[in-house]
Amino acid sequence: MKFFISLVFLSLTLVANEGLIKKAYEANMKPIPKSNKELKKLIDDPKNPITKDKVELGKILYFDPRLSKSNLISCNTCHNLGIGGTDGLAAAIGDNWQANPMHLNSPTVYNSALAYMQFYDGRSPHLADQAKGPMTTSFEMAIAPSELEQKIQKIKGYKKLFEKAYGKNTKITFDLIAQTIAIFEKTLITPSRFDDFMHGDTKALSQNEQKGLETFLAKGCANCHRNEALGGLMRYFDTRGKYTFRTVGGFEGNDNKLVKVPTLRNISRTAPYFHNGMVWNLKEAVFEMAKVQLSISMSDKEASEIVDFLHSLDGEIKSINYPMLPR
Amino acid sequence: MKFFISLVFLSLTLVANEGLIKKAYEANMKPIPKSNKELKKLIDDPKNPITKDKVELGKILYFDPRLSKSNLISCNTCHNLGIGGTDGLAAAIGDNWQANPMHLNSPTVYNSALAYMQFYDGRSPHLADQAKGPMTTSFEMAIAPSELEQKIQKIKGYKKLFEKAYGKNTKITFDLIAQTIAIFEKTLITPSRFDDFMHGDTKALSQNEQKGLETFLAKGCANCHRNEALGGLMRYFDTRGKYTFRTVGGFEGNDNKLVKVPTLRNISRTAPYFHNGMVWNLKEAVFEMAKVQLSISMSDKEASEIVDFLHSLDGEIKSINYPMLPR
Repeated sequence: MKFFISLVFLSLTLVANEGLIKKAYEANMKPIPKSNKELKKLIDDPKNPITKDKVELGKILYFDPRLSKSNLISCNTCHNLGIGGTDGLAAAIGDNWQANPMHLNSPTVYNSALAYMQFYDGRSPHLADQAKGPMTTSFEMAIAPSELEQKIQKIKGYKKLFEKAYGKNTKITFDLIAQTIAIFEKTLITPSRFDDFMHGDTKALSQNEQKGLETFLAKGCANCHRNEALGGLMRYFDTRGKYTFRTVGGFEGNDNKLVKVPTLRNISRTAPYFHNGMVWNLKEAVFEMAKVQLSISMSDKEASEIVDFLHSLDGEIKSINYPMLPR
Repeated sequence: MKFFISLVFLSLTLVANEGLIKKAYEANMKPIPKSNKELKKLIDDPKNPITKDKVELGKILYFDPRLSKSNLISCNTCHNLGIGGTDGLAAAIGDNWQANPMHLNSPTVYNSALAYMQFYDGRSPHLADQAKGPMTTSFEMAIAPSELEQKIQKIKGYKKLFEKAYGKNTKITFDLIAQTIAIFEKTLITPSRFDDFMHGDTKALSQNEQKGLETFLAKGCANCHRNEALGGLMRYFDTRGKYTFRTVGGFEGNDNKLVKVPTLRNISRTAPYFHNGMVWNLKEAVFEMAKVQLSISMSDKEASEIVDFLHSLDGEIKSINYPMLPR
């Protein structure tokens, strides 16, 4: 009898789980594809496809501070792979210790390849285009494309690495440097227990986390935090309620007042939150969203449930061998 | 007959090689010990001996920018393990983009454990003491010891790592942080072909490199570049000739006008040269030394020979797994 009850309970739980998975799919939440082939459909560029040699070269470029005018700032300075792909600062600091003039926060590079657009105002369609921004912006890496090309072309080790990745006599251009960095960044995808759950492993999320996902869906969070990126698309910001720190930095989105939705993947690792990095606590960020985007009241219990779920988005970060930079 | 001649030639070469090894030892040039036990005698501190867990923790601290007031500068910023353990800048740049006020150049961290004293004025006896300098200096990482302690104590992941390395309820102090960083740095020893040669592998150096070592010894370079560090002790600087860039930065050594001799290990990877980083070319640096320290004329051929030898000091750098920083 006891066994029978257990069996019924287990079946009901499984049904409940599967119902939750279905609901999440219906709300357009999507897992990172399991197969490399499917993942590549999302992130690879047939014009310059991912290869092992390009990834290795892209990693070296990513860590090389010589890509900045000062020789001191690398991509990894602000998108530090050891700190969730961010810098842990409210507003980014760049060349000559200049803070971002709009008090913009460095977004995580992890899973950025899954986003539909890049930058908070969505002005860039993909990472190969995006990477050019920080390199050349005066308050970030501050280097002119021609200066960068000359510098990299002069380093013999780079000549070899570009030829290995792209063939003999490859011309090292600003475009190709940016594309190659993007190719490395495309490998920074971090599947999490949420993805296992969505692929049918109903035990991948704890009961608390499943409860959190239920609440997340019920409140409408997936209206913005959807697709594989659980974000990465454009939405109106704070039109339903006033963001507490609206005035800090003066950023108001693109011409249509649209703002890119940050990914929720690894969110527990990427504080502080929001475009101007003014909120350090994850639960506080959830409350802020309830007010600003959903115009709903949220109980402390509900916010905690959502935070529980968000922790299930902590992804698996592949180990990275620190590169020795060519001379 | 031909075979016999070859044999005689080979024997003579071997004798010559062994003579050169002997001469180098007599000039107090020493290889990095082959055995771990012998190496530990040189670098380990019995009061806080090297262990695997401490090394791993020390590496994490070394890469963690939260050890600075700004949360943006780590040990690795100025002693970048991908750039020969230096920053590749003439003068170090630190907190708030301040350049070193004496225009001092960041020395390499590789093999720094072999030096008899630390800092250009030799004011520090060992790395565990040295590490405190950059962390607290206003134009470097600019953090107060108490602030650092509080910050690190608050990070739960660090509590676990310190307990794993040092035992339950270990108090995370400024001293212990510095000691642990030093323990990681002690593992950054890079044996080179020169060491193989000194251990008797007479083929480890090419004929050109051996010729270079002959010239190096004949000119008296080993008067300063000696011991395992091939440097790392105090000597008068530019007393015999005027250093071309003497006026840049105003550094004149310690109270007795003594300056720490930089290590020659990995010298081809650590440009620019000298305490104020004013010379970018290795051959030019050799000429400068001939003038300034030895007061001798040196032919272009001799300088080239020495440069050939110096390349044999490029050490083997162990691969480093980029650490994920605790939260």
